[in-house]
Amino acid sequence: MSMELEQVLPGEIERRSFEIITEELKGRRFDVGQEDIIKRVIHTTADFEYADTMTFSPDAVKCALEALRDGGNTVIVTDTNMTKAGIHRTSLEKLGVEVHCYMADPDVAKTAKEQGLTRAYASMEKAARMAKETGKQVIFSVGNAPTALIAIETLMQKGEIYPALVIGVPVGFVNVVEAKERIMAAKVPYIVAKGRKGGSTVAAAILNALLYKIDNER
Amino acid sequence: MSMELEQVLPGEIERRSFEIITEELKGRRFDVGQEDIIKRVIHTTADFEYADTMTFSPDAVKCALEALRDGGNTVIVTDTNMTKAGIHRTSLEKLGVEVHCYMADPDVAKTAKEQGLTRAYASMEKAARMAKETGKQVIFSVGNAPTALIAIETLMQKGEIYPALVIGVPVGFVNVVEAKERIMAAKVPYIVAKGRKGGSTVAAAILNALLYKIDNER
Repeated sequence: MSMELEQVLPGEIERRSFEIITEELKGRRFDVGQEDIIKRVIHTTADFEYADTMTFSPDAVKCALEALRDGGNTVIVTDTNMTKAGIHRTSLEKLGVEVHCYMADPDVAKTAKEQGLTRAYASMEKAARMAKETGKQVIFSVGNAPTALIAIETLMQKGEIYPALVIGVPVGFVNVVEAKERIMAAKVPYIVAKGRKGGSTVAAAILNALLYKIDNER
Repeated sequence: MSMELEQVLPGEIERRSFEIITEELKGRRFDVGQEDIIKRVIHTTADFEYADTMTFSPDAVKCALEALRDGGNTVIVTDTNMTKAGIHRTSLEKLGVEVHCYMADPDVAKTAKEQGLTRAYASMEKAARMAKETGKQVIFSVGNAPTALIAIETLMQKGEIYPALVIGVPVGFVNVVEAKERIMAAKVPYIVAKGRKGGSTVAAAILNALLYKIDNER
């Protein structure tokens, strides 16, 4: 027990964390609407690289907030059950926004196998069909599989889906950078972490930052 | 669509990713039992810093594998539902190992509020009671809250719990480094990512690497 603990009350830990993040960002300025999203991603990862890599289409935050405020008309589709588990449930329920992850669905596994696709790709196709059938708008949250982003871009090209927002923060080594570049070149509101980094926790952090914005307005 | 995609079959993406990781580690050597854990953490984060920060007690991998092979006698306790969602279900079910996360339990929230603790702290106390009552051994997997690690260390000091393994990879800015140092100073098998970094995905990746070791033996 060589190291002393900083004495911080349980309810104060998050506030103190954001204070440290702000100090270490040394006066760096961000777009007002984007700042708390970037800081929450740093809070989730302890990785200041995201201050440089987080990239937003000009309308991204506005479109995201509008879609979330639209409650029952909006569905969040994730590419991992981890992100689904990480989104703040109470905030979602207040808005009436549902979250779906189709990755573990047997029909997705079947389609993927038959057509030689990844399950992530097939699950995004399923999301596009769901959106068509229900008329709901979709916020895609991709924190794991670059092939999910590639699927979304392909489905947009074909006119099969018009996402309200694409959160593009898959992590990894094969086609991750390229998939993010494709989404940023597409005509869609996006929030992307450029480069190889990202993850399910980053995807959840971005959604939570958006949800907390709405919570704080109330 | 400026960037060409690397053509990799769905079933080959993970293998190709590990190939890239191995290439970029440039011949760096790790302990044989630890190597695939470290590489899986890098695979999950795209962050090579973990090659330097992942730290194992000498007996950690052996103790972890023994506990997991012990199946129904072992319970994994996580500090987030995200980690719980990220552990490979089929591998767990084959072994008969259960996973519990008490973070969202109403009694944990109540105790935390009454006693001025974090919910993470109170949920680790609940885990210690569960272990006592059931006689099961516990693998703790802490990917979020340093106060969970502090709770485990305090409970060990009091003789309330003897973990089979502590995975200590919380992320953040307040007492994260200190909590990890305390676990590494305690008499317990541990796998820790030194420093501020870690997360629920890292915690899940470590458990999955261990589970896949056992899967591959069969």
